[in-house]
Amino acid sequence: MKKSKVILAGAGPGDPELISVKALRYLQSAEVILVDRLVSPELISNYTSAAAEVIYVGKQCSKGIFTKQEDINQLLVHYAKLGKKVLRLKGGDVSIFSNILDELTVLKQHGITYEIVPGISAGLAAAAGSGIPLTARGYSRGVRFLTLFDTDSISEELWNDWAKTEDTLVFYMSGLKLKHLVKSLLAHQISTDKGIAVIQQASTAYQQTTIYRFETIEEQELLAFQYVPTLFVIGRVVELHHDFAWRDEVSSLDTLSYFDNHLNVLRDAI
Amino acid sequence: MKKSKVILAGAGPGDPELISVKALRYLQSAEVILVDRLVSPELISNYTSAAAEVIYVGKQCSKGIFTKQEDINQLLVHYAKLGKKVLRLKGGDVSIFSNILDELTVLKQHGITYEIVPGISAGLAAAAGSGIPLTARGYSRGVRFLTLFDTDSISEELWNDWAKTEDTLVFYMSGLKLKHLVKSLLAHQISTDKGIAVIQQASTAYQQTTIYRFETIEEQELLAFQYVPTLFVIGRVVELHHDFAWRDEVSSLDTLSYFDNHLNVLRDAI
Repeated sequence: MKKSKVILAGAGPGDPELISVKALRYLQSAEVILVDRLVSPELISNYTSAAAEVIYVGKQCSKGIFTKQEDINQLLVHYAKLGKKVLRLKGGDVSIFSNILDELTVLKQHGITYEIVPGISAGLAAAAGSGIPLTARGYSRGVRFLTLFDTDSISEELWNDWAKTEDTLVFYMSGLKLKHLVKSLLAHQISTDKGIAVIQQASTAYQQTTIYRFETIEEQELLAFQYVPTLFVIGRVVELHHDFAWRDEVSSLDTLSYFDNHLNVLRDAI
Repeated sequence: MKKSKVILAGAGPGDPELISVKALRYLQSAEVILVDRLVSPELISNYTSAAAEVIYVGKQCSKGIFTKQEDINQLLVHYAKLGKKVLRLKGGDVSIFSNILDELTVLKQHGITYEIVPGISAGLAAAAGSGIPLTARGYSRGVRFLTLFDTDSISEELWNDWAKTEDTLVFYMSGLKLKHLVKSLLAHQISTDKGIAVIQQASTAYQQTTIYRFETIEEQELLAFQYVPTLFVIGRVVELHHDFAWRDEVSSLDTLSYFDNHLNVLRDAI
């Protein structure tokens, strides 16, 4: 058996230029690449070696499309044991909501060495792209990266904390929960000088930012969920978007998606 | 007056390969580069154009070395108005504890256009480098990026929240405050199954990780402050380091510093 090593790397938030130099180098030299849905399709089409085997293992549970974690684990072990240069490429960073623990556990069990390469998490890209510094002095104490995946388990105490904190809140993977989130924060007396920025497809050509203030949000129609990655940024810093937004954004609420590496799977299958 | 544009970019956490492809491209083409202390010196020495003007504007208040924010603002405006390609390069990311708001405000006042390029924040690099997934399922709900800069203003309620939360806590720029932090969290009954990872110079060749468990921390001698960037990661995830650490680290508690772009200033002045 050849000596095997798996690289677990973050590909950044979508803009292919926001990958790190290190992850790009591994992408160019990898023989087998296991790719998540929210990895830039341009990275895969422009930088992988012609001989590389690219395997899409993305999850999009709301569409019923997913690869079981167990299958991903088996693929990692299988190719590593063949002595291949294996790259496990994830959207954003690997340490924030990436489920890396399962993969680390399996690699460790099989004695496979690995390296972890961080990436620019979507929350950081959303902040930069919308002109919202997450920890602006005088506006917030710190910043939290959170998810509403498990809405039912959120206690009254935690809702109260989220409504009252001086930290900026960034919610990942919570596109379907906007109304629930707003209603709950209002019910827990969130300050009316706070706002919520809904940022879709951050850093891509399809980036779109919509700002609501809690003062007037009850009179507004909230965005419907779309099949695109969506982040919420909540806090007093949100107001800074009006002063410091610098990007052109798409104007219509369409469902165009920059991502969806599954399209490649379909195209390749035809 | 030529059309001016300033690029505000994160250089990543220290490993020069952890800069984004986009920030590297701007670094290579910039005519004037204003550099913070915690930017990789290798990036500056290897990738700036020979004709570029590199200006060190780092802050290290504990050593009494700093450039006033007002002076940095004036430099940005001065060079932008000359029509130069100006890059403002900051360590890590630009949206987390970077004081970008002052600079954005001045650029806006002078009608200077700008672009914001995110970077890999040190917290993400520390997590990847020490094998500690920040939001591992079953271990934490989310993650908070915080600082203890203003220890006096932390209320009993906030200490209690920090001690009790299910979020992982990452403290930036708090190297001097380790004993205060530990004492306060113990006083607020932090759970003994949580730990604290002290990670110095994350992602560089001098990276060093030290793990303490709150169960036994009172019997241990805590690290003295050193003049190197230090992050604390606190939570149940810290224990994962023992299973998943993968990097070789320096073994002695020395004060070697990968960073300190001021050394360049001194060298250049001789």
